[in-house]
Amino acid sequence: MTDNAMSIQKNEFSSGDFRKALGSFTTGVTVVTTRGVDGADTGLTANSFNSVSLDPPMILWSLAKSSLSLPAFTAAKHFAVHILSSDQQAISARFAKRGADKFAELDIERGPDDIPLLPDCAARFVCETAYCYEGGDHIIFVGRVVRFDHWDRSPLLFHSGQYGRLLKAQGEIGNSDFNDVFLGHLLRRCYQKVYAPVRAELEKLGFSRAQYYVLAEAAQRDTSMLDDVRKSLELSGRHASSHEIQTLLDRDLITRDGELFKLTARGNQTYIELATVIKAAESDAEHGLDYDLRQTLKIALLKMLESESLNV
Amino acid sequence: MTDNAMSIQKNEFSSGDFRKALGSFTTGVTVVTTRGVDGADTGLTANSFNSVSLDPPMILWSLAKSSLSLPAFTAAKHFAVHILSSDQQAISARFAKRGADKFAELDIERGPDDIPLLPDCAARFVCETAYCYEGGDHIIFVGRVVRFDHWDRSPLLFHSGQYGRLLKAQGEIGNSDFNDVFLGHLLRRCYQKVYAPVRAELEKLGFSRAQYYVLAEAAQRDTSMLDDVRKSLELSGRHASSHEIQTLLDRDLITRDGELFKLTARGNQTYIELATVIKAAESDAEHGLDYDLRQTLKIALLKMLESESLNV
Repeated sequence: MTDNAMSIQKNEFSSGDFRKALGSFTTGVTVVTTRGVDGADTGLTANSFNSVSLDPPMILWSLAKSSLSLPAFTAAKHFAVHILSSDQQAISARFAKRGADKFAELDIERGPDDIPLLPDCAARFVCETAYCYEGGDHIIFVGRVVRFDHWDRSPLLFHSGQYGRLLKAQGEIGNSDFNDVFLGHLLRRCYQKVYAPVRAELEKLGFSRAQYYVLAEAAQRDTSMLDDVRKSLELSGRHASSHEIQTLLDRDLITRDGELFKLTARGNQTYIELATVIKAAESDAEHGLDYDLRQTLKIALLKMLESESLNV
Repeated sequence: MTDNAMSIQKNEFSSGDFRKALGSFTTGVTVVTTRGVDGADTGLTANSFNSVSLDPPMILWSLAKSSLSLPAFTAAKHFAVHILSSDQQAISARFAKRGADKFAELDIERGPDDIPLLPDCAARFVCETAYCYEGGDHIIFVGRVVRFDHWDRSPLLFHSGQYGRLLKAQGEIGNSDFNDVFLGHLLRRCYQKVYAPVRAELEKLGFSRAQYYVLAEAAQRDTSMLDDVRKSLELSGRHASSHEIQTLLDRDLITRDGELFKLTARGNQTYIELATVIKAAESDAEHGLDYDLRQTLKIALLKMLESESLNV
């Protein structure tokens, strides 16, 4: 966590700096829609949404006075706010741009006054316009909610000009117990958890993982020195015992001539069969995980691999 | 991603359902502070904050009409909004409760009219109250920002009644390339990345990781059957070759009597020395990672270990 402080007084304001400071408030992303007096569907991406009142149920959002959509929203008696789900980044991008065909090919429903309602979001609020308030270069729209829909979907987030995903904290994440868990141990245990079904699958077929990797190594070369194969395995933290290699020789899957060895035709076919089974088991194993957790893990792990601090 | 839809019309509203639907809009967490006419510091946790206007710079938040703090805020000419950072969950909890000593032991600065300013947040906006608008059971406060501070800190998030952390998306996270990367491969590569310095440390001392784990296994028991030690290693995906074990015998670190073997006094001392070095290397390796990424990974990995879908 770097600590670049920036402290700015009113007469030094640049809207860029102010925008950056505002960006540190994370929000969900919404698309707000209505129907213009001309009957045209209108919609735009906004993250200025927030709840206001429970009783009566009210929400608000704000729109720039310079927006081309302002006349439609000030005239409309109804509007709808859609809270986007994490897989709706493309919808957010589409409604953030100017363009005539924002609604093209979307599976639109219709609300009161025929306002367009988008599908597949995390929540949707259909509102009567209650107040339009002055707010500097924006108008604050307060809507009284007349209907809402809610789906159990994870949200799309926006922070400092970037999209993001939510990672729910479980309990106190800063406590010392948590810090005592080595990341490496967790990585190893998770790796083994994902690979338990793969290992089981291989065992059923009478192979160890090391044996599978020996076949895979051999399949990538025409002929190899046994030592090179072993080194290549060791490099990725794997180890094949002499016994494991002997078994492959005994099963006529590899042949050996001194230190030189290669895959037999039978070995090649076995490797292809095993690879198919393994890839399916790998895929099944990770797809057993909650979608969001899987995506979160992949993003975080890729970031970790890219992290320079560990490139020692 | 489950798809529990809930669609509710106005006359069926329960405030609980409405609150849940609103909760699907993720927000940062703020603490808003001011100084009452009696000179008492006042503050509360709010997630109803949002930006309104760039020029003039304005923000808003709303406060329940039933709040005991309402008189202080309606009378005050100034207030401050603090966007909390991810390590300020305790501050959020403190200001969310009623209590006389919310400001106790905090390192408070003073703003205009002596309003209290909190340290260590992600951003801080000092505002003149510009408008107080009617908003159902809440009052919407619009503030004109007279000064702001901004630090480069990751935000605390709030979603569906739970705290959370932000995971920034990098590019399109839903594309097929991304889905083609097996989670297991990533886990293995990350594991190896974390352990590269540990492995280097062991090599310098003339031990393989398998040898270290043989010593560790032996240290946990008085005497062992060699087979039991090997099985225990295999269970966690490790393998010690006969050669590696022979070297430990040759160095007088373990003794062997038939299949029974145990740590020597020298072996025990070596194990303690190695364990110290290893634990330090493990700790260094993970602390080379960005703090937020490390915490994110730990949370996600712990969730993965708890996930039932993989408990096959």
